[in-house]
Amino acid sequence: MRLSVVGLGLIGGSVALAGRERLQATVTGFDASAQALERAVARRVVDRAAGSVAEAVADAQAVFVAVPVGALASVVQAALAAAPGDCVVTDVGSTKRALAFAQADPRFVGGHPLAGSESAGVEHARAELFEGATWYLTPAAHTSGVLYERLHRLLHGLGARPAAIDAETHDAILASVSHLPHVLANVLVAQAAHALSEDEERLPATGPSFRDATRVAGANSAIWTDIYLANADALLAQLDETVRRLGLVRSALENRDPVALTAWNEAAREDRRRLLEAHLAGGPVHELRASVPNRPGVVAEVALALGRAGVNITDMALYPTPDSSEGRVALWIAGEEAACRAQELVERLGFPVTRP
Amino acid sequence: MRLSVVGLGLIGGSVALAGRERLQATVTGFDASAQALERAVARRVVDRAAGSVAEAVADAQAVFVAVPVGALASVVQAALAAAPGDCVVTDVGSTKRALAFAQADPRFVGGHPLAGSESAGVEHARAELFEGATWYLTPAAHTSGVLYERLHRLLHGLGARPAAIDAETHDAILASVSHLPHVLANVLVAQAAHALSEDEERLPATGPSFRDATRVAGANSAIWTDIYLANADALLAQLDETVRRLGLVRSALENRDPVALTAWNEAAREDRRRLLEAHLAGGPVHELRASVPNRPGVVAEVALALGRAGVNITDMALYPTPDSSEGRVALWIAGEEAACRAQELVERLGFPVTRP
Repeated sequence: MRLSVVGLGLIGGSVALAGRERLQATVTGFDASAQALERAVARRVVDRAAGSVAEAVADAQAVFVAVPVGALASVVQAALAAAPGDCVVTDVGSTKRALAFAQADPRFVGGHPLAGSESAGVEHARAELFEGATWYLTPAAHTSGVLYERLHRLLHGLGARPAAIDAETHDAILASVSHLPHVLANVLVAQAAHALSEDEERLPATGPSFRDATRVAGANSAIWTDIYLANADALLAQLDETVRRLGLVRSALENRDPVALTAWNEAAREDRRRLLEAHLAGGPVHELRASVPNRPGVVAEVALALGRAGVNITDMALYPTPDSSEGRVALWIAGEEAACRAQELVERLGFPVTRP
Repeated sequence: MRLSVVGLGLIGGSVALAGRERLQATVTGFDASAQALERAVARRVVDRAAGSVAEAVADAQAVFVAVPVGALASVVQAALAAAPGDCVVTDVGSTKRALAFAQADPRFVGGHPLAGSESAGVEHARAELFEGATWYLTPAAHTSGVLYERLHRLLHGLGARPAAIDAETHDAILASVSHLPHVLANVLVAQAAHALSEDEERLPATGPSFRDATRVAGANSAIWTDIYLANADALLAQLDETVRRLGLVRSALENRDPVALTAWNEAAREDRRRLLEAHLAGGPVHELRASVPNRPGVVAEVALALGRAGVNITDMALYPTPDSSEGRVALWIAGEEAACRAQELVERLGFPVTRP
């Protein structure tokens, strides 16, 4: 496998390391910063340094674009222009609608790993960064099924759990589970730091729960200003919802209403349990085989239908028929209940399913 | 040392264990729940189980009341009624103004360790829970200096870092660094869980930063409803401040203003750095000796003046003169700068300081 990684920060560097160590891939890297590129070569994160995006992707089978959100569109465009016709190109940006233009290209699949670290830069890259992490993929109508499958297996090989989702839903979810928490962390540290500054010299001592809640406060501005702006409308909607919910807590407190406070807190307890359980793998893996017509977008359609229902595809494989008129998609799903659900969903799309 | 612990949950159990293991104390315990008391005896968390609060504190030198906030006032009253005249009585409740009545008793010092765990109950108690943790103390005008010093040394022996603060300031700080983060964690999980529930079946996959930010969501209602109510006015003020700050972020986003967003994020970065640095110990420990008049409240006055300025007292000792007309307080302060600051503050109170 020949991988190309453009942008060698924490995420790009970790993709490169995991590709080399876990998949024995040959990795070509490029970074606009000569210093970052040198560090990546010195640390043996990549096998070979390229002099440009075009050179980096020229003979790749899969390209990962891992540059900041603000530079993403132009670099993805450059990568698609130079990459071979049978090469899958993906990115790792945390908002996805901004790359809608690229979805017309069958080689492009938007991506976003839910992994990271407080420490940026290739020097913190590690091959295990994606172990068990959800890795969102946003295939669209024109996406090549063969290339989508290749990327899915590749991410699985990096240790991640790929999950298909449409770009708009992805951005709304990320506003809620990532961009909003970052905003609130910033607000929390600002309030704590200024809580008493008017008449006191001390800064308050904080406990472990405060440190956990504000771990991401003041995250790298070079990355986060772009993210906030790229997803501004979804984030604005989430901010309004937060203010509405704070208003409800405010009323319960103002009325000194223990019943309302307890009900609100118990609901949060239940929400947290559901969110955590949604990520547990569901038991032994079952295989499903679906017969699908050989037309563009079919694999994306199947992956998105399962993704929407929260059914995780552990692994997948495509088997074209000799005359290529139709094909078979094999899907591996963890847990009997999830497998039944998957069968139902795929059959509802009009594709017959067998379970070997 | 004879310790008494009333209320054997996570915190009470950990005080008992740390007292036995680190200070070779003899610990008598009581809990209103016979089952909790049995478990504490079975796990050898206490040396001896008492049948009532009065029996538990009868011959103690120090009493820790570690019951839920709602029960705190009545149990502290019962403990003060039965404890010997030279016994220090403290609590571990997370709001402090509610115990103002007890501050008329020279034996009482309000307390609150910034330590805890996701898992409640004596079965999760451990002797190391307080290692390095800030432990707020709220001495007042009538507090006995001798008993305050005993408690300070005791907490230091449990591994904690005692810090004096007045009760009102404590509650305002805790609203900001603990109660508000709990409210925001609840709001975050509720929003994520309901983000897409109208037209989607899936729950969003969440990354490690979301899990950190919401670790305390839906915390034990039996404890937290009481805490929210006990500190309702300070928390209401913090909620209003949060809504105001969210309004500022909202404007910057709505105006798609990268300069304002970056400035806001950099300020949060700086606030976080200052909050974290405020907790670093400051180098080698220096000894200060202050001559103080032998009247009630002097030690509290010194401790509060240093606490207000964010100067941490690593350890302290009292040396009364033979005729008890005055005494000397020895203070150990980490870091040359902090020691100089401490000397200045104590001298400003009118007490001469020497540095041996």
